[in-house]
Amino acid sequence: MSDFAALWSELEPIGRAEDGGYHRLAWTGADLECRRWFRARAERLGLLLDEDPNGNQWAWWGEPSPGGVVTGSHLDSVPGGGAFDGPLGVVSAFLALERLRAGGRPSRPVAVVNFADEEGGRFGVATLGSRLLTGSIDPGRAAALTDAAGVTLADAWRANGLDPARAGADPERLARIGTSVDLHVEQGRRLVDVGVPVGVATAVWPHGRWRYELSGRGDHAGTTRLADRSDPVLPLAHTVLAARAAAEEAGAVATVGRIAVHPGAVNAIASRATAWLDARAPDESVVRSVVAEVTASAEAAAGLHGVGVSVAEESWSGGATFGSELRGRLAGVVGGRLGSVAELPTGAGHDAAVLAAAGVPAAMLFVRNPTGTSHDPAESATVEDCLAGVDALTAVLGDLLS
Amino acid sequence: MSDFAALWSELEPIGRAEDGGYHRLAWTGADLECRRWFRARAERLGLLLDEDPNGNQWAWWGEPSPGGVVTGSHLDSVPGGGAFDGPLGVVSAFLALERLRAGGRPSRPVAVVNFADEEGGRFGVATLGSRLLTGSIDPGRAAALTDAAGVTLADAWRANGLDPARAGADPERLARIGTSVDLHVEQGRRLVDVGVPVGVATAVWPHGRWRYELSGRGDHAGTTRLADRSDPVLPLAHTVLAARAAAEEAGAVATVGRIAVHPGAVNAIASRATAWLDARAPDESVVRSVVAEVTASAEAAAGLHGVGVSVAEESWSGGATFGSELRGRLAGVVGGRLGSVAELPTGAGHDAAVLAAAGVPAAMLFVRNPTGTSHDPAESATVEDCLAGVDALTAVLGDLLS
Repeated sequence: MSDFAALWSELEPIGRAEDGGYHRLAWTGADLECRRWFRARAERLGLLLDEDPNGNQWAWWGEPSPGGVVTGSHLDSVPGGGAFDGPLGVVSAFLALERLRAGGRPSRPVAVVNFADEEGGRFGVATLGSRLLTGSIDPGRAAALTDAAGVTLADAWRANGLDPARAGADPERLARIGTSVDLHVEQGRRLVDVGVPVGVATAVWPHGRWRYELSGRGDHAGTTRLADRSDPVLPLAHTVLAARAAAEEAGAVATVGRIAVHPGAVNAIASRATAWLDARAPDESVVRSVVAEVTASAEAAAGLHGVGVSVAEESWSGGATFGSELRGRLAGVVGGRLGSVAELPTGAGHDAAVLAAAGVPAAMLFVRNPTGTSHDPAESATVEDCLAGVDALTAVLGDLLS
Repeated sequence: MSDFAALWSELEPIGRAEDGGYHRLAWTGADLECRRWFRARAERLGLLLDEDPNGNQWAWWGEPSPGGVVTGSHLDSVPGGGAFDGPLGVVSAFLALERLRAGGRPSRPVAVVNFADEEGGRFGVATLGSRLLTGSIDPGRAAALTDAAGVTLADAWRANGLDPARAGADPERLARIGTSVDLHVEQGRRLVDVGVPVGVATAVWPHGRWRYELSGRGDHAGTTRLADRSDPVLPLAHTVLAARAAAEEAGAVATVGRIAVHPGAVNAIASRATAWLDARAPDESVVRSVVAEVTASAEAAAGLHGVGVSVAEESWSGGATFGSELRGRLAGVVGGRLGSVAELPTGAGHDAAVLAAAGVPAAMLFVRNPTGTSHDPAESATVEDCLAGVDALTAVLGDLLS
């Protein structure tokens, strides 16, 4: 078994459902098990473990000080996600560090990072660990977020020994990241199309999440005349279709992947229906215009059905273009090491984009994904490509530390 | 406090949520507490308690034998239902029996009944207790029904001391019901419009429940091009709108009050989406044509989006016209007692319709509901009208026993 396969097999069973989907929502049992794995791995390599007040885990080689090199990703997942989204970057980072250590002490401190709650699959806001670290989200707002069961993030923090009063911007730890390079499985088919195993990210699209709450009047499904109804499920359906139409028109992507209907009885008209909209595009103005159009459609349909509507922006990520200097350096090193490299943008959000937006020199490597699928059990990567990713990351870190 | 208010206050807190909605799903803690209340009430009145293999509870005054008179309703609720739907009939039945007992032994045995699992809020099929009793559902099919958590009805039965092998048609107990008269809160505004507190049911509309399963392909909401998607939420939205349009066109009612989207991540395209359709009309052929039209629309939309669709009929209730002789007798007695009475059909399903379809002489009384709302916390009835209902039921039972 390769060192990659050995390490991978340690994480593989954690939080995996029967259909192969992973359920490692932030601060749940499976996520905590992944965090224990991170701790044990840091200890085995003799790295200095630092768990910060925002829940991020750092494993430092060399005393942490300003201007270090940081690599890693996250270990949480969306509900029913794939195996690679996140863990591939953390595992690759540990392996790259192990290889570099054969060459003696680094010129700068280097860390593997596991950013907390990257997916937002439980509390609704993605990249929370890096947003809190960089001060790009108010820690009070984050602490008050609730999961589907009504548990607040503050509760989840406290249950795991974190003090909500200490969460928030952490300039000292942020300054330790002189350069950030994260590796991630590609969440599309670009590298398949161009036939190379590893790519360099050019940009992360701006994107956000909006919650559409439609409030009607619950009633009996058999005895209430159609004309007397205020059924919120009808404008919800219009909202779903409007999102697709607006995105198509604008060259954006828009998705409703989560819906809640209350009380959810088959023989009762719902009193409340909620749809969550995820919208992304190369430009912020395009995203904003799509959301404005969806909102107008939701309001028009709600009006027709006597239903109230409120729209809340649950999260906004401004997107980022990764600095061309660092990006060019990575492309040169990876191309030199593997013989070929591709450059590509992504519609997915990443902690690297949060860091870049906060002024940290950041870059990303992508590893080819044969299905192109992500956030689903079908997400995949071959062992050969994963090893190419580790090679590329090792070479990039070696270059940055040289 | 009236005897009605005293009895009502015993049931009132059981399974009530903060918003006033009741959660007494079959065989859950709140339902079991209601069943214990029924037992205690039967004991306090010195009635003979009989819990049958289908989970129905009977409290007999007089040794049960063929041709008795049965009155009652159910104590379970939809999720977030009102206080009156079911319990008003059981409480009124106990009070009527108490009053009649002052007059000595009955000419025929009389029972208060609590039919198990009337709403189908947990396992998806309504009026299960009476369907099993009358043999109008296969007990093996019923036992295999599952709730949202994957618990089978057989599991729930066993947990409560019932043997799934003993469930099913029970001709002996069925023969004990010589006449059935159930009282129920009205689930509409007819009695408000005509200004009388109590009405007599003419008919129950035929109705059913259908499950539309749409199977697509899960993927990342940010990185998957619109053209590459198989998003099942889009045909689900079309199905919801088609149901409303088809019902409007046909003079029927159709409702989607429950939706499930899997895996339900904001940043993932769903892999599966399910909508439950409730459809009702005065005639079976109209219901069938509405469902056929919704199915055709679901299939067309699914085809456009590369999504698979399957439709399952979860339950079907053929509807019933209550016998005009018994109905006329009730109207005469109630009109004589209260000075006025109304006759009205209903779109709601009831155990009385299952009994009527099985050849049992059955009838129903309705008590005025000022909001007209049901299956929602807004469902209501004044104490005066509830007492008028008890008066009417007492008079009707007295007449049947004379």
